[in-house]
Amino acid sequence: MTARPVVAVHEIGDWDESADVVVVGSGAAALVAGVMAADGGARVIALEKAAETGGTTRKSGGNAWVPDDHRTHPLGLADTRESALHYLARTSRPQSYSPHSPFLGLPEWEYDGICLFLGEGAAAFADLAEKGALATVPLPDIPNFYSAVDDVVHGRTLAPCTPGGDPGDGPELIRQLTGALEQRGGRIELEHRVVSVVADGERVVGVLAETPRGRRAVHAARAVIFGSGGFTHNADLRRSYLRGPVFGGCAAATNEGDFVAIAQSLGADLRNMAESWNTPIQLERAVAGDPALTGTFSVVGDSVLCVNRYGRRTMNEKTVYNEATGPMLEFDGARCEYPNMLMFAIFDQANYDGFRGTPFDGGALPAIGDDDSHVIRGDTLEQLAGRIDERLARLATATGGLRLDAGFTGQLAATVERFNGFARQGRDDDFRRGETEVERYLYRLVANAITLGTDAQLGSGATNQAASFGPGKAGWVEPAVTGNPTMAPLAADGPYYSVILAAGMLDTKGGPRVDAHSRVLTVGGNPIPGLYAVGNCAASPSGKAYWGGGGTLGPIITYAWRAGKHAATASPVASA
Amino acid sequence: MTARPVVAVHEIGDWDESADVVVVGSGAAALVAGVMAADGGARVIALEKAAETGGTTRKSGGNAWVPDDHRTHPLGLADTRESALHYLARTSRPQSYSPHSPFLGLPEWEYDGICLFLGEGAAAFADLAEKGALATVPLPDIPNFYSAVDDVVHGRTLAPCTPGGDPGDGPELIRQLTGALEQRGGRIELEHRVVSVVADGERVVGVLAETPRGRRAVHAARAVIFGSGGFTHNADLRRSYLRGPVFGGCAAATNEGDFVAIAQSLGADLRNMAESWNTPIQLERAVAGDPALTGTFSVVGDSVLCVNRYGRRTMNEKTVYNEATGPMLEFDGARCEYPNMLMFAIFDQANYDGFRGTPFDGGALPAIGDDDSHVIRGDTLEQLAGRIDERLARLATATGGLRLDAGFTGQLAATVERFNGFARQGRDDDFRRGETEVERYLYRLVANAITLGTDAQLGSGATNQAASFGPGKAGWVEPAVTGNPTMAPLAADGPYYSVILAAGMLDTKGGPRVDAHSRVLTVGGNPIPGLYAVGNCAASPSGKAYWGGGGTLGPIITYAWRAGKHAATASPVASA
Repeated sequence: MTARPVVAVHEIGDWDESADVVVVGSGAAALVAGVMAADGGARVIALEKAAETGGTTRKSGGNAWVPDDHRTHPLGLADTRESALHYLARTSRPQSYSPHSPFLGLPEWEYDGICLFLGEGAAAFADLAEKGALATVPLPDIPNFYSAVDDVVHGRTLAPCTPGGDPGDGPELIRQLTGALEQRGGRIELEHRVVSVVADGERVVGVLAETPRGRRAVHAARAVIFGSGGFTHNADLRRSYLRGPVFGGCAAATNEGDFVAIAQSLGADLRNMAESWNTPIQLERAVAGDPALTGTFSVVGDSVLCVNRYGRRTMNEKTVYNEATGPMLEFDGARCEYPNMLMFAIFDQANYDGFRGTPFDGGALPAIGDDDSHVIRGDTLEQLAGRIDERLARLATATGGLRLDAGFTGQLAATVERFNGFARQGRDDDFRRGETEVERYLYRLVANAITLGTDAQLGSGATNQAASFGPGKAGWVEPAVTGNPTMAPLAADGPYYSVILAAGMLDTKGGPRVDAHSRVLTVGGNPIPGLYAVGNCAASPSGKAYWGGGGTLGPIITYAWRAGKHAATASPVASA
Repeated sequence: MTARPVVAVHEIGDWDESADVVVVGSGAAALVAGVMAADGGARVIALEKAAETGGTTRKSGGNAWVPDDHRTHPLGLADTRESALHYLARTSRPQSYSPHSPFLGLPEWEYDGICLFLGEGAAAFADLAEKGALATVPLPDIPNFYSAVDDVVHGRTLAPCTPGGDPGDGPELIRQLTGALEQRGGRIELEHRVVSVVADGERVVGVLAETPRGRRAVHAARAVIFGSGGFTHNADLRRSYLRGPVFGGCAAATNEGDFVAIAQSLGADLRNMAESWNTPIQLERAVAGDPALTGTFSVVGDSVLCVNRYGRRTMNEKTVYNEATGPMLEFDGARCEYPNMLMFAIFDQANYDGFRGTPFDGGALPAIGDDDSHVIRGDTLEQLAGRIDERLARLATATGGLRLDAGFTGQLAATVERFNGFARQGRDDDFRRGETEVERYLYRLVANAITLGTDAQLGSGATNQAASFGPGKAGWVEPAVTGNPTMAPLAADGPYYSVILAAGMLDTKGGPRVDAHSRVLTVGGNPIPGLYAVGNCAASPSGKAYWGGGGTLGPIITYAWRAGKHAATASPVASA
């Protein structure tokens, strides 16, 4: 990085462009803030680093988790803000949540952030719908991700609603929001990478952006709102702030943490820098830098298990994705290694045939005709092991040379035998697979998606279409299963298959603490005049939690909705 | 915090004091830098926040881990810098170490830092000894902490050497260094808390310190060297940068991360912010804020085991302290809890009688007459469980209300029975307790200390005196044990005892990246003129590793030695 993160206004010469509100990024956070600012009368320019709009949102399902949406009440869901408050607090800070302590045992700013989300989330989405900016539809069957500690269990996920009334996805959400911004006179400039803010004394008055036409200085008379995402794709920042072997993730490739140095240089109060929205990812796609990488949110199927380099099962394969990376980061001090750093999903032909092409595993089990170069095949478990190890040899520079243990094959056979016993009895005595609401739901979701057809046939809204296809819907057939449908014995004969998984994330969660209007706060707790942060470049008050499907965008859109309204009315400075 | 982290020189009026080099702190890092600067002719003032000198070093054993010290060669240790290089790199970054990759798979700055330490560590200690600033003596029996992946296994730990030629401790190290500084005209001001740096343009030219006499501005003509420690005792920073339930640690109580905001505001490149020098600690001393808290570096004894709130053993109790906290931070996503957040050491009367008062467990098993209010007693395991749970009820606000599971007592009995079986067979089939070199060594160390007498009898150098008391020494008797001495069955009858342990640390490891002279670097990689950082307030290139006894001070003193030399020759600015 050659540009200094903060440049004084007297250093830059003339402005190249001017607006009331400059928005950095064009994902959901940036666009909602931009729409609301424009709706409040501000001239808005959004500067997008990539060659297309949408950021990480475009790659996502587009869902938003919002408690107490009024439309869920007729569905009989007894959601209240009070029960949601305790669910949010407990899951965000499980080590300190205390129902009778001030702020429920949370840091005050996290408690305030949660209360703000609960108090205004449903209203924000209703207002965006009323303004014609973003239509949503509830997906009432989706459970919360920590159903064991929740009163409500499901019904807080909203999907973008297509013009036809169907649940849509990330691209649909971006389509609506970019339209709403443009209708209000806002403009989006692509290939504008913001590398510095321009400061007039303490006040932020604009930005410098690197563009194909050179560096451009853009004046912001009222506010600069960063919605530029986290630092998933900056290996230095990952190593500096996260812990353990995290291999990247499915954030937009432009999420390189450009805002971190800017926020630091302005004396912002960085929080929750070690947290991320976690998910397993396919090692090989991550190592290759595949910009289309998405999470293996579920290890799909039933006759499938995951083992480490010793051939041992060390996790519940169906654990909800945010928690599934935890075991992968465990360290063995005696051996000085991360024994579960790579987990090998092992499955049989029936599992491959039955579950390939589903929309929820990031292509781990690819549809017929899709790239399957990452799927390793062996006629026997022994041959499979040999081929996994060959693959590992080729990946050595990315993995510190991790290879299978010499005892892998023998242990794998024993592990499969033990797993098959659990599958037959319908109970996993080692890891309790399939016992939580969300694990059973995700299994059914994938099965429904298979019933509906693959991603390729349905388009990328397939997950949400599957989520809205369920009990009571035309064509729905309840799977005739007893016991634990998430487990089936692996076949006694091959072929067998494997995919290599590693810890990754949707994006990071850390950044500056902000106030109720998303103004960036200094370490001393004062707003930095003219500067706002929304989305994954700001600190999330969710701590370590991923509350449910859309747990990312629910609070993010709520906060951005408030930020845009506030920025539109911020007192202006004159263009220099 | 009311003061801004960076104040412009024109804002402060007259300087109250002036020096060539201002050192912030008076632990080993600060003092070594100060001694070397003074030795180079600089006028040095050290500003210490506390009312006494020594920082965290004063609370420590004072050891320094240094490969290839020339004095170990006659002892037959085949240490080389090459073998040490691979040990350091592999243990620092186990997920990416690769013997044939550039920088061995490490980030370049970490590789450079490690090479610098290897290249100059032994010379730095030899030079300090020659200057009469710091005498050390090798403790050749202490093993490295990852002996399974090391060629050399032991012999890299140096202790401060008392005037009588015995191995000393932290206070002895501080005594020598403060004397050396004062001999060279340096001065230490106590109760001076540095809250801001003073900048003249880009250059740091002094500091502001809060003192009992009000705020004082201290000019630094050549350099300001921060050696102010990490952020162990700042709960906000712990939550912002570390991950999971960490309850504090044994750093000096003044280690509140005062430098973090300053470094951020100057645009410094913060690294390894999620890492710390880990150790279990006693929950109750940490919660009480006991300034004398030190690590429970070992769960001492043989008829002792640790269980979680379910009564289950979930870790090898003898794991070296830096790694013992890992299992305590594991999260159970299905239950939404940290099941091992608190670990209950359970031991019988023989273990208490045999191992109380040893110098290595931070008073977990206190000497007779010492405070034993944290030791919970029960005539039976059932009674013990009830009393643990009563204690937990009193600690609820600090622990998020964690209590024993209803099945604790029954499970504990089964766990003890299983452990007793392992002890009888001399092999721990679950966690391999006592199988590494360092685990066996630490057991012997404690047994030797018992032979020598308790801490109270020997003074705080007891650990190092025990470490130097061993095979071949007068009075040494090799314990007549076969099998695995680290395990013995718990007695069939009570009384039984428990102490509550939690994850903690010696101090944090993150801070700004520095160059070979410990000059603080910006995100762009440029030194900030006039600013140096040494010790735990700077980023450690050791990644996640704790290489051996003194793994903290070995590199820290080496880097500080270079920093002080360089600062003495930095080009001066005039006093305003």
